[in-house]
Amino acid sequence: MFQRFEATTRPADGPPRLADLRRQMAAAGLDGFMVPRADAHQGEYVAPRDERLAWLTGFTGSAGFAVALRDRAGVFIDGRYRVQVRAQVDPAHFTPVPWPETKLAAWLREALPGGGVVGFDPWLHTFEQIDKLLEELAGSGVGLCESDNLIDRIWDDQPGPPLGPVVPYPAALAGEEHAAKRGRIAAELRAAGQKAAVLTLPDSIAWLLNVRGSDIARNPVPHAFAILHDDGRVTLFADPAKCDAALAAHLGAEVTLRPPVAFDAALRSLPGPVRLDKASAPIALAGLLNEAGVEIRWGADPCLLPKARKTPAEIAGTTEAHLRDGAAVVEFLSWLDATVPTARLTEIDVATELEVCRRATNALRDISFDTIAGSGPNGAIVHYRVTRDTNRDLAPGDLLLIDSGGQYIDGTTDITRTVAIGDVGHEEKLCFTRVLQGMIAISRARWPRGLSGRDLEALARYPLWLAGQDYDHGTGHGVGAYLSVHEGPQRLSRSSEVALEPGMILSNEPGYYREGAFGIRLENLIVVQEAPALPGGDDRAMLCFGTLTYVPIDRRLILADMLSAEERAWLDAYHAQVRDRIAPRVSEAARVWLGRATAPL
Amino acid sequence: MFQRFEATTRPADGPPRLADLRRQMAAAGLDGFMVPRADAHQGEYVAPRDERLAWLTGFTGSAGFAVALRDRAGVFIDGRYRVQVRAQVDPAHFTPVPWPETKLAAWLREALPGGGVVGFDPWLHTFEQIDKLLEELAGSGVGLCESDNLIDRIWDDQPGPPLGPVVPYPAALAGEEHAAKRGRIAAELRAAGQKAAVLTLPDSIAWLLNVRGSDIARNPVPHAFAILHDDGRVTLFADPAKCDAALAAHLGAEVTLRPPVAFDAALRSLPGPVRLDKASAPIALAGLLNEAGVEIRWGADPCLLPKARKTPAEIAGTTEAHLRDGAAVVEFLSWLDATVPTARLTEIDVATELEVCRRATNALRDISFDTIAGSGPNGAIVHYRVTRDTNRDLAPGDLLLIDSGGQYIDGTTDITRTVAIGDVGHEEKLCFTRVLQGMIAISRARWPRGLSGRDLEALARYPLWLAGQDYDHGTGHGVGAYLSVHEGPQRLSRSSEVALEPGMILSNEPGYYREGAFGIRLENLIVVQEAPALPGGDDRAMLCFGTLTYVPIDRRLILADMLSAEERAWLDAYHAQVRDRIAPRVSEAARVWLGRATAPL
Repeated sequence: MFQRFEATTRPADGPPRLADLRRQMAAAGLDGFMVPRADAHQGEYVAPRDERLAWLTGFTGSAGFAVALRDRAGVFIDGRYRVQVRAQVDPAHFTPVPWPETKLAAWLREALPGGGVVGFDPWLHTFEQIDKLLEELAGSGVGLCESDNLIDRIWDDQPGPPLGPVVPYPAALAGEEHAAKRGRIAAELRAAGQKAAVLTLPDSIAWLLNVRGSDIARNPVPHAFAILHDDGRVTLFADPAKCDAALAAHLGAEVTLRPPVAFDAALRSLPGPVRLDKASAPIALAGLLNEAGVEIRWGADPCLLPKARKTPAEIAGTTEAHLRDGAAVVEFLSWLDATVPTARLTEIDVATELEVCRRATNALRDISFDTIAGSGPNGAIVHYRVTRDTNRDLAPGDLLLIDSGGQYIDGTTDITRTVAIGDVGHEEKLCFTRVLQGMIAISRARWPRGLSGRDLEALARYPLWLAGQDYDHGTGHGVGAYLSVHEGPQRLSRSSEVALEPGMILSNEPGYYREGAFGIRLENLIVVQEAPALPGGDDRAMLCFGTLTYVPIDRRLILADMLSAEERAWLDAYHAQVRDRIAPRVSEAARVWLGRATAPL
Repeated sequence: MFQRFEATTRPADGPPRLADLRRQMAAAGLDGFMVPRADAHQGEYVAPRDERLAWLTGFTGSAGFAVALRDRAGVFIDGRYRVQVRAQVDPAHFTPVPWPETKLAAWLREALPGGGVVGFDPWLHTFEQIDKLLEELAGSGVGLCESDNLIDRIWDDQPGPPLGPVVPYPAALAGEEHAAKRGRIAAELRAAGQKAAVLTLPDSIAWLLNVRGSDIARNPVPHAFAILHDDGRVTLFADPAKCDAALAAHLGAEVTLRPPVAFDAALRSLPGPVRLDKASAPIALAGLLNEAGVEIRWGADPCLLPKARKTPAEIAGTTEAHLRDGAAVVEFLSWLDATVPTARLTEIDVATELEVCRRATNALRDISFDTIAGSGPNGAIVHYRVTRDTNRDLAPGDLLLIDSGGQYIDGTTDITRTVAIGDVGHEEKLCFTRVLQGMIAISRARWPRGLSGRDLEALARYPLWLAGQDYDHGTGHGVGAYLSVHEGPQRLSRSSEVALEPGMILSNEPGYYREGAFGIRLENLIVVQEAPALPGGDDRAMLCFGTLTYVPIDRRLILADMLSAEERAWLDAYHAQVRDRIAPRVSEAARVWLGRATAPL
């Protein structure tokens, strides 16, 4: 099993560690210290040595940060984690702070009315984060100060840096040789008059060089830094222990491998101007370059957009991965429906069986994130991860929310289905149908080229809004091709103003959560495509989504009368496609189940 | 009649004037000169002396600009004016440029590959416009240079500045005394550490001081500048000929009236920092203040948001204005339906009769803009203004698009209806029904507080998008209370990221246009309200729209089968409300017509 169900933290561990941290703060002359859930690569997943937030507070969510002051410690968490945080931290010592509703600067102003100095590790924060915070703190008397990482000083058994092998990724799957990628991005640097770009995001580096790594769970990326020069050469900074001769052969003469300790000197000797992404590069790098007199040009990581626009080969691979994964999920759902009436099942049983089904494909490299299997009230915890402590028996009348995905060599999947356990109440069906309507609205969308995810998101929320309901997370995130399951810059969210372009893969996952009662989420992955012209339509370029995910949506939870004729037609057509494409890939039992599950409404 | 139907420009006048302008450019050593449709107050309507764009080119649209170079002259117009511009300018001398698709900087780079100097009048351009243009021209060799207005040098019979009286506006209608308004905005300046704010927008000044003016058609505002000091005092710069003793009494001791010539010296002697709005203040003011060493703080005009959030008194007044106006429009529509079968009617007849009906209320102060009455293909010209040259007979099978409004002492109206003339084709009905669905989607919307118009606009376009269609204008604009019919900052548009707040009035006006064939637009005014809690709804603050406009939507153009049950219910409920509220206010003939027009679908 990739997934483990042991609770990795205990609320009781937090307070003594917090006391230790405060002693370090006092010794360093600091009034506070910031503990983000971040490493120098700003990934969503971090290596065990970078789990400082969880180690200090007990909170294990994938986003958030803590700030320890002398008299209080805030744990800043977004809407997805409001419920989870209360179970994981000791409330007598840590105060959950709803973020971004409460801004860090406002909280610091209130907590430090007489001013003070808050320390931070410059490798764990971006230039943009610190710059914005400083601006918001202007006039408050609260200052920020770079510091050694105080957690690393007190964490006795902190693990070392990961040393997962870096391996070549076939150009046939990537759809483009790394020399070609390096060449076209270098041309972009030359056009902008920039001598080099510093890359700090592991998935940018993996994409650019057609490599994959294994330094962190769930994401096949290497921890590394890289410098892309304006002639297309790359210097890659990664531990030599992770790199073998086959890798060197794959990288070729234009990519020079150097140990991480050489990064500092290489940066200092760069000719400027150098592109650095203020949204993702550690502020430590800006300090280094400034010290050395190297001119910085702020600009987006030049790999972000090209990586987001998947090649035809990547889309073909991802499609195959989704068919494979869809068959595994159908085997699982068929098993679930057969087993629920006859056996006691827990959330852990569910997550385990789902991984078993995916492993049976003999193609699973990893799960793409820890499966969320939340039944009844646990479903309302948006990013719930079952542990032996929270594990719950499925009970008749429950909704079971299962959000999961697989990493395959040819693609990354991410799918959520919410299914009925026994007879489910009318209110749950009402909400489920609204969520489905939102998901269908996005699936059916066509729009004139140039719009961003922000411009479309209301379509997914409208059916809930009309009922006075909403959900506290974005509607969709970008997804990589055998890379991170969450990748930018494309998103279906108010925070995304990047124009959607053909080849971009996103999730489409509206939801609804009633705390203490139930949670609903439905998620398909979708890919942006050029929309075919329609008779009577305008002569204007329009885009649409193709659906990549092929798994039935639980018909028992749909109030068919609420759907418009067009919504019903979409669902029936989707189900027919699921049946046609998945049936040849599953067992006889699953095929029978699939036939029922995909019948027209 | 307020409206006139004479063409005010002729394409043939443009070329000799352009030749004159080029002689002036040569004498001034300029390679180009910018001619915006703007005055120093950046209003949508300008006084006759400021109609420089129309005088030079012939183009009379409400937005756009020309740039004359030695060898070419571009007329930059947005999607609303693509058709109109071709009829109004001489294409041998003026080249229409689709804007904002083609940026001015890109056009200048191409037109002046060897560089050059382009002049502009600093009173007619904002700091933001020039600053952005300079940035986009970086490295091009094209420079910008402040200049006297070269059009004013060659326009022999240019009218003088308008001298319309400035009159008090009753506090009972405004809902707040001007002393209270001045006080709370001054407090905001003090909190921001600013000594004063310079106001250049006539509707901001009119709102702040509870006055109205008559310097330009359609907008009851005075041409004036003002300085709001941080103690709540105001210095108002307006021609003494426009101000009488009653006005002075209304303004009181805390508002000092000065002639416009005193503005320059008053600015130069201000203590800083001074707030100036880079989006609306003429760049000339920034130059003046900088020269005098007065510190500028860029910031939004402080009246914008308070003016946009209408008081309960303003909403009550606007509601009454809409009932009055709705009754007038119902009289008109009833007359139209009765007259079409029996008489030859032209677009001018339509616009004339509509104004007659509004005048019959004995309350019409002005029309709020020149009525758009476009039949058949003229309906596809988004901002069509009929003239004796373009006037067209209504013909069976036409759609007739009528966009109009009234200025009343208690409110400003703006309504569009598209009606059938005789039997109309199926394609027109398909498109009409989609436009109606978009309008209903906005009307029914509820959303969590904090969203902007941008976040909602997709709802209005979705039914058209699904058919491969769209429209090239925003879905809605802010509307004033007996002020400008177009006011910011709230908008239902991709360009608006200002959060919608209770009391804001907007238009809801999706459309569809098929060039050479027909145009469709439906427009109601709506006001943002707190949404009542719903059973089963979340415990979160949500907003919704109330509808202010009470006029039937042409049932003959609706394909009822395309509507969902909820859409039909909305329309039937709307029509029932229209009937109940308007019937008591109209003639017997109109009441009979209204009964039929508002019958359930």
